[in-house]
Amino acid sequence: MQGQNQQQAYDRGITIFSPDGRLYQVEYAREAVKRGTASIGVRTADGVVLAVDKRIRSPLMERDSVEKIHKADDHIGIASAGHVADARQLIDFSRRQAQVNRLRYDEAIGVETLTKQVTDHVQQYTQIGGARPFGVALMIAGVSDGEPSLYETDPSGTPYEWKALAIGADRGDIREYLEANYDEEMTLEAGVGLALKALESVAEGGLTPEGVGIATIPVEDAEFHELTDAETEAYLSDLDLLATDEDDA
Amino acid sequence: MQGQNQQQAYDRGITIFSPDGRLYQVEYAREAVKRGTASIGVRTADGVVLAVDKRIRSPLMERDSVEKIHKADDHIGIASAGHVADARQLIDFSRRQAQVNRLRYDEAIGVETLTKQVTDHVQQYTQIGGARPFGVALMIAGVSDGEPSLYETDPSGTPYEWKALAIGADRGDIREYLEANYDEEMTLEAGVGLALKALESVAEGGLTPEGVGIATIPVEDAEFHELTDAETEAYLSDLDLLATDEDDA
Amino acid sequence: MQGQNQQQAYDRGITIFSPDGRLYQVEYAREAVKRGTASIGVRTADGVVLAVDKRIRSPLMERDSVEKIHKADDHIGIASAGHVADARQLIDFSRRQAQVNRLRYDEAIGVETLTKQVTDHVQQYTQIGGARPFGVALMIAGVSDGEPSLYETDPSGTPYEWKALAIGADRGDIREYLEANYDEEMTLEAGVGLALKALESVAEGGLTPEGVGIATIPVEDAEFHELTDAETEAYLSDLDLLATDEDDA
Amino acid sequence: MQGQNQQQAYDRGITIFSPDGRLYQVEYAREAVKRGTASIGVRTADGVVLAVDKRIRSPLMERDSVEKIHKADDHIGIASAGHVADARQLIDFSRRQAQVNRLRYDEAIGVETLTKQVTDHVQQYTQIGGARPFGVALMIAGVSDGEPSLYETDPSGTPYEWKALAIGADRGDIREYLEANYDEEMTLEAGVGLALKALESVAEGGLTPEGVGIATIPVEDAEFHELTDAETEAYLSDLDLLATDEDDA
Amino acid sequence: MQGQNQQQAYDRGITIFSPDGRLYQVEYAREAVKRGTASIGVRTADGVVLAVDKRIRSPLMERDSVEKIHKADDHIGIASAGHVADARQLIDFSRRQAQVNRLRYDEAIGVETLTKQVTDHVQQYTQIGGARPFGVALMIAGVSDGEPSLYETDPSGTPYEWKALAIGADRGDIREYLEANYDEEMTLEAGVGLALKALESVAEGGLTPEGVGIATIPVEDAEFHELTDAETEAYLSDLDLLATDEDDA
Amino acid sequence: MQGQNQQQAYDRGITIFSPDGRLYQVEYAREAVKRGTASIGVRTADGVVLAVDKRIRSPLMERDSVEKIHKADDHIGIASAGHVADARQLIDFSRRQAQVNRLRYDEAIGVETLTKQVTDHVQQYTQIGGARPFGVALMIAGVSDGEPSLYETDPSGTPYEWKALAIGADRGDIREYLEANYDEEMTLEAGVGLALKALESVAEGGLTPEGVGIATIPVEDAEFHELTDAETEAYLSDLDLLATDEDDA
Amino acid sequence: MQGQNQQQAYDRGITIFSPDGRLYQVEYAREAVKRGTASIGVRTADGVVLAVDKRIRSPLMERDSVEKIHKADDHIGIASAGHVADARQLIDFSRRQAQVNRLRYDEAIGVETLTKQVTDHVQQYTQIGGARPFGVALMIAGVSDGEPSLYETDPSGTPYEWKALAIGADRGDIREYLEANYDEEMTLEAGVGLALKALESVAEGGLTPEGVGIATIPVEDAEFHELTDAETEAYLSDLDLLATDEDDA
Repeated sequence: MQGQNQQQAYDRGITIFSPDGRLYQVEYAREAVKRGTASIGVRTADGVVLAVDKRIRSPLMERDSVEKIHKADDHIGIASAGHVADARQLIDFSRRQAQVNRLRYDEAIGVETLTKQVTDHVQQYTQIGGARPFGVALMIAGVSDGEPSLYETDPSGTPYEWKALAIGADRGDIREYLEANYDEEMTLEAGVGLALKALESVAEGGLTPEGVGIATIPVEDAEFHELTDAETEAYLSDLDLLATDEDDA
Repeated sequence: MQGQNQQQAYDRGITIFSPDGRLYQVEYAREAVKRGTASIGVRTADGVVLAVDKRIRSPLMERDSVEKIHKADDHIGIASAGHVADARQLIDFSRRQAQVNRLRYDEAIGVETLTKQVTDHVQQYTQIGGARPFGVALMIAGVSDGEPSLYETDPSGTPYEWKALAIGADRGDIREYLEANYDEEMTLEAGVGLALKALESVAEGGLTPEGVGIATIPVEDAEFHELTDAETEAYLSDLDLLATDEDDA
Repeated sequence: MQGQNQQQAYDRGITIFSPDGRLYQVEYAREAVKRGTASIGVRTADGVVLAVDKRIRSPLMERDSVEKIHKADDHIGIASAGHVADARQLIDFSRRQAQVNRLRYDEAIGVETLTKQVTDHVQQYTQIGGARPFGVALMIAGVSDGEPSLYETDPSGTPYEWKALAIGADRGDIREYLEANYDEEMTLEAGVGLALKALESVAEGGLTPEGVGIATIPVEDAEFHELTDAETEAYLSDLDLLATDEDDA
Repeated sequence: MQGQNQQQAYDRGITIFSPDGRLYQVEYAREAVKRGTASIGVRTADGVVLAVDKRIRSPLMERDSVEKIHKADDHIGIASAGHVADARQLIDFSRRQAQVNRLRYDEAIGVETLTKQVTDHVQQYTQIGGARPFGVALMIAGVSDGEPSLYETDPSGTPYEWKALAIGADRGDIREYLEANYDEEMTLEAGVGLALKALESVAEGGLTPEGVGIATIPVEDAEFHELTDAETEAYLSDLDLLATDEDDA
Repeated sequence: MQGQNQQQAYDRGITIFSPDGRLYQVEYAREAVKRGTASIGVRTADGVVLAVDKRIRSPLMERDSVEKIHKADDHIGIASAGHVADARQLIDFSRRQAQVNRLRYDEAIGVETLTKQVTDHVQQYTQIGGARPFGVALMIAGVSDGEPSLYETDPSGTPYEWKALAIGADRGDIREYLEANYDEEMTLEAGVGLALKALESVAEGGLTPEGVGIATIPVEDAEFHELTDAETEAYLSDLDLLATDEDDA
Repeated sequence: MQGQNQQQAYDRGITIFSPDGRLYQVEYAREAVKRGTASIGVRTADGVVLAVDKRIRSPLMERDSVEKIHKADDHIGIASAGHVADARQLIDFSRRQAQVNRLRYDEAIGVETLTKQVTDHVQQYTQIGGARPFGVALMIAGVSDGEPSLYETDPSGTPYEWKALAIGADRGDIREYLEANYDEEMTLEAGVGLALKALESVAEGGLTPEGVGIATIPVEDAEFHELTDAETEAYLSDLDLLATDEDDA
Repeated sequence: MQGQNQQQAYDRGITIFSPDGRLYQVEYAREAVKRGTASIGVRTADGVVLAVDKRIRSPLMERDSVEKIHKADDHIGIASAGHVADARQLIDFSRRQAQVNRLRYDEAIGVETLTKQVTDHVQQYTQIGGARPFGVALMIAGVSDGEPSLYETDPSGTPYEWKALAIGADRGDIREYLEANYDEEMTLEAGVGLALKALESVAEGGLTPEGVGIATIPVEDAEFHELTDAETEAYLSDLDLLATDEDDA
């Protein structure tokens, strides 16, 4: 609706609305999210799954240093897409909030409560000048009071709750796959399978245990659990998703 | 009265008036409100009604995460249109003000008092540099001292009191419908019906219980009450507004 | 004396004088005042009158929410024209000053004293950067020590005292009417009549009781008094100013 | 020495010198002074005179609200030319300084001391960013230790002492008149006459008692004294300066 | 994907995203890193190696003043590439963090912990306005709890863990060499050899003991150890990497 | 070396160096100094002389209000050239420093010490943004420990010590005159004569006692002494420098 | 690698990197250093030498006021090149640091320690906005623990240690001379000779005792010592470097 020149006039800072009421810097921050590799979340009846593409640039890089799934508290995991250094700030913020909650109220922070504290923090960076928005989206997954839940925070500071969700690269294609195949009553194991199949649907040449990160928070124990390579390989093998050639790893 | 180039010279910040005395950034923030989905408020003799379009983008999104009606205090509800993350800030502000009032004066905050505290807060963001206006309008509905009332706050920080009102997308068409059909003496139930019919007047293919959010604050108990899907469906069915096809839900 | 391009170079902030010594942002704020509907003040021998055009945009809007006459203290009323949200800030400022005066000196604030406190506040916004001027003019009317008085504050922060005055839309035409018809010795009732006739002189199709707001502060009791619709209608009827058709109301 | 475009490059803020060492914003503030109506000061052997053009825009405006001569302390008067709201700030500043002096040292502030406190304050606004210069010049007249004196403060914050002086509109013509007719040994009465004749020299159609403001601070009692209309009229009549037609009043 | 003009519009400060979600100032800071001479890190089974090109501009410069390898704590060494003055700030920051850790917890800081404190500090300079990013990358090498590790911090504030790594000039070519020749099980001595051979692969005319800086942190004693010229020369001689002509030194 | 357009790019603030390493705003402030009238200082074996051109713009201006020679302390005088309001700030600063020195150390401040405190203060205004440099140069003359000395401070904040010096208009011509005629062993009286002859060398039509200000600080008593008109006239008469026509006074 | 227009886009402030990773404002500050006259430092086995070109602009200027060699502490001397007022700030900073060290640790500050405190201070001005870099380079020479050393600080805030060094005008030619003639084992006297010969190599017409400043810090007593004119003349005479004509002095 706006030509290129028009748009440029209103995208130089977060304190400026465009004539059609848009905040371009926030929209550009969303582009930074799309530049990140894909992350997927799936909520099932008995837990939540987070799955991420953690293929690395070089065989010399330590796989574990590609941090894309983070434990925020015993019962909450967070996956990110976008500007990695920004993600780390929000992860740290989340961990501090979780700790403060335990100290102050002597109980685990609710998944929704944490999400909203994060989005409040993020929104400030979209309204007050002198800084830029966070170029990152998070999926916050956890179990509170026996209920699994999965939230998204975006660069505008809006929280959304999802049954299943993809952020980062190929977000559109993966979401279509999830919409077509999601079943609210599936088991946690089936959820892991769905996430892997969705990830594979946009990967060329299949997946490798090393190129995928998976974490679950089962309702049963409400404990964040990151899968070992062996566990991941078992899933991939069972689902026939193993790459036949490791060139892409 | 001003050409395109002229306008551009004065719309880059909230601290600049245009030669004809306008604050363009505030007007652009009003455009952000129009980008939001529609919300409707109706004041009746025995209570106030808030109704919102809460259709969701994806079947995988949790309906409840599309927050458009909020309980600010036992006797006050707020519906918003526009930039969602901004709305959340003002809702939180409203809740804190309501709590402070209870703590300080040991009584429920007046609906008008709360409205003016919100608009004072919003006005600051239109006069002092270093930030942008709030890209959101609120409808604040409640019952104080046995009287129902319905207020609007806009991005300039001006409060208005209404008998019935629409904000967000299709605001003009819905307002025409309300002006033509509003009756100050109608019952709360009739108010719910009017709100739904007004919403339906701009919706293609009818309404679904899931795509609509309704809350009432009856004079009788002055308690914010959000309708269940079943209650909504009963209304829609009685009014013959049910979508025959759920494609739009 | 300056072309369009020249002017533009010096109107981007309040901290810049133009080569001919003007503050364009303050002048543009005066344009915001002209965009407001008309307000009229008339000082008579036995009191002061404020009259405002309070026609509303929609029949669904509550008339009382169009705040254009405000009680600042028992003995002082304020009418405004221009940016409504800005006006509210100055009204609140005025009320606080009046309260502080009562607390500190145990007496009612003088009308001139209050006016100068307002203009001092307004002037700051025209000299220090990081904000914009107030886009509003006020008429401050009251009775101090048995003397009625009527002041104007403009966006530059200059106080003026008037016998009779109009601010807002059609200010020029109304002032001409007032100059032609004002009589310093008239009664308060005659003052109300003059204000209404002046207002009618620029209104098409006559006035309605609902479309007009009137307040008086008589010397006798020095109490701010807002006229009821019935009282207003009686005046309009006596003066033959009643609209024959309520289309414009 | 500089073309129009050159000049524009260096006149956008007080923190920028032009290549030829000028501060354009201060020079533009001097233009604001010239836009004000004329004020005249005359020092005589037995006192100081201030005379101002106080013709008003409208017969409905209260003459006393056109404040151009101010009493700063018992023994000091100040006349201003330029931006009225700015003048009020400096007058208030002067009064506070005078009061502080009485409180702190238990004696009346010296005229020169006060002048320098004002110019120090004004200079700050020409060197530190984030504000604009004061668009006003003051004449500070008074009697200290039995000596009459007359000072000027300009927008750069420079103090000057004068025997006789004009600021505001027609400053150049009036100064020529004063230079041609001033006599250091004249009486205070003759000084009033000189000021009025100088004012009349640039007024078309003569002066009216209402259009002129006069104050004296005689050496004898060192008390600021403002002339009544009758006193002014007597002077004008004696000097044959009375307007024959009050059109210009 | 963006033309030259487009890019320029978004690269003037760290608080602006480009339309495709990039932070150009951070990318330009990475260019500053590439302008620095090469540094290499190699992690082996029994320790970590840092090797740097420390050839100097002039024979009159003291070799030791070309600080490119720094001891951050007994068990941690840091090598830098890029803007030297920026590097010194981060080295000082690292040393203070290490000291604080010893004081507060009475134990040596973990290599990963230190890395993340550095990257948190660096990230702040990429999001808050009023400063520029750090134009430097660090390699942080050390032994914690008997485990050798090697981290990189880049100007965006992202931490990476590597088995072997090159930063600065010729980074790409050296990395290719490392990828082709790295063996995770090699000894520390072999690691020194690999680093030197990699460095030589991009140096014309061989290496000199004076033009190379080498430090090791063996697992055995977890003590930062900088090689003497004699030790370096022994390695170079054994590996047949000694420059035949010292012109390049 | 730089064209006009080039220069303009780097002269808009004190925080920007030009490509050839110049600070244009400081250089422009030096132009402000040249716009001031001439001041001359001469150091002799038995004291220091300050002489200034104090011709006034109008016969109505009080000569003493053209402040160009100031007593900073009993033993120190200061002459200025340039922006008068800026000069007053530095004179006040100097007086405060002199007083502080007496209070703190119970002794008179050294001339060099005072000079360096002034230049430190001035330098800050050339490096930190948000203000402009001082558009003034000072000559600080005095006697400390029996030694006469004469210093200059310029807008960059650099102190220089001189035997004889001119600042302000015609600085170059006067300096040539001084270089040609200065004799380090001359008496204080001869120094006054040299200063007057140098001043006359650039004045058309000779000097008048009223148009010249002279002060001396003799080594003998180390007391600042300003010459009376009679004393000045005696000098001018003896030196045959008296203007034959007072047109230029 | 960048055209003129390109460069201009990135050289307006210290908080902006250019696309090729350069900080133009720091590079321009280096140009300010080159505009200064030459300073030379030579480290010998038994002490350090500083030599500066201190020819003056006018015979009326006091030679000692051209401060280019400064005593920072008993055992440390500093020579500067570039913006003189900036140099004074850093010299003062150095002296304060030296004093603080004596107070806090009761021992003389190390030469390297002092250098790094200076460069840390300088670096801050290259990364945080609101100021400009220091337009000066320093040579810090001294004797700590019996070891002579010579450091350079540049406008980026980088410290370098040198055996011999030139800063300021003709830096390149002098450095070539030093590289060709420096001998690490030379005596302090030979060092003085080398510095003078290097200085003469770029001076036209030879040197004068008055146009040269020399200081030494011998290892023997670690005391800063500035040569008298007689001492300098003896050196110049012995070395046959005396100017035959003093025109250039």
